[in-house]
Amino acid sequence: MTGVTARRRGRPPRAESADTRDRILTAAREEFSERGYEKTSVRGIAKAAGVDPALVHHYFGTKEQVFEASIEVAFAPALNAPEAVADGPPDQVGERLARFIFGVWENPTTRKPLLAIVRSAVNNDTAAAVFRRLVASQLLRRIAAQLDLPDAELRAELAAAQLVGCAMLRYVIKVEPLASADLEQIIARVAPVVQGHLTGP
Amino acid sequence: MTGVTARRRGRPPRAESADTRDRILTAAREEFSERGYEKTSVRGIAKAAGVDPALVHHYFGTKEQVFEASIEVAFAPALNAPEAVADGPPDQVGERLARFIFGVWENPTTRKPLLAIVRSAVNNDTAAAVFRRLVASQLLRRIAAQLDLPDAELRAELAAAQLVGCAMLRYVIKVEPLASADLEQIIARVAPVVQGHLTGP
Repeated sequence: MTGVTARRRGRPPRAESADTRDRILTAAREEFSERGYEKTSVRGIAKAAGVDPALVHHYFGTKEQVFEASIEVAFAPALNAPEAVADGPPDQVGERLARFIFGVWENPTTRKPLLAIVRSAVNNDTAAAVFRRLVASQLLRRIAAQLDLPDAELRAELAAAQLVGCAMLRYVIKVEPLASADLEQIIARVAPVVQGHLTGP
Repeated sequence: MTGVTARRRGRPPRAESADTRDRILTAAREEFSERGYEKTSVRGIAKAAGVDPALVHHYFGTKEQVFEASIEVAFAPALNAPEAVADGPPDQVGERLARFIFGVWENPTTRKPLLAIVRSAVNNDTAAAVFRRLVASQLLRRIAAQLDLPDAELRAELAAAQLVGCAMLRYVIKVEPLASADLEQIIARVAPVVQGHLTGP
């Protein structure tokens, strides 16, 4: 780790560069998860990654840009969702989207960064803007684009609202009986709603 | 203000006592709104109210209890919701609940404390527990009780999830086009979903 710090003025070799970048992103994700957007600093991320803060700025720019990059990595699987969700019978698109979103939340590996994003976006306007750009624009608009309906974006957002609300009450606030309810039972009730928003009259 | 501080050891006269209590609650709501649960302290609330911290403890107890009391005040109108929502044709209960929830969010006076509660509940487990006790138990269970169906609580929570998700995307994250969409258009799409969760097959 000190090797990287000592060599930061020169251009790092390509392999080490990718490695350092990954290490900064991992540290950033941990810091944002634990402290939230506001309390996280570039200095703190650098310290956790064992590099000089200048290197964080060199690779990513501002704190907002590090946040966006760390979300992009966490969201990489989700950004393939529009294709995965689109792929199949149109009358089951609601169920596919519901399964996809619950799948991300049920998996502890993806739940943690997602929780960090939600917490940051709820608390901080800059983080909310990043959330809007990535999740709303990239995820929802792409799903909407495949619907090919005039009010597709609003449809996608209302469908997302049902799933976001379920995630909030089940995984974040942990309201019972929803928090412990059988996932298949929830999907059976929620999928038709999502389908209705997306393709209903 | 210093009068209250100076007299804190004696029992305050009844009228002043109610006044001081209100002032502490107002200060608490402001502090929790601005800083969130974690960063708010009893000392900070006392300072904002112009009283001794001992007086805050005297009236309310711990920080968690001050938080709960300040939420209870903010939620007093919402806690009448079950009756208001129940009062009318059963096949329009979904629309009444949707109008009630959006009404609270559209009103800047009630939106601010609500936003503070949501922010605190998302960020802090103690605040989430208070949110569960008040909102979930008092509000959702009472709506559920009026449904008189075996899975009424889960129904009420899934209905709430649609509305919570809409509030998150429209008022907190401010995703477009949902954030600027006409409220009646949203209610027209969301009310049948809420109705379906509450009383559907």
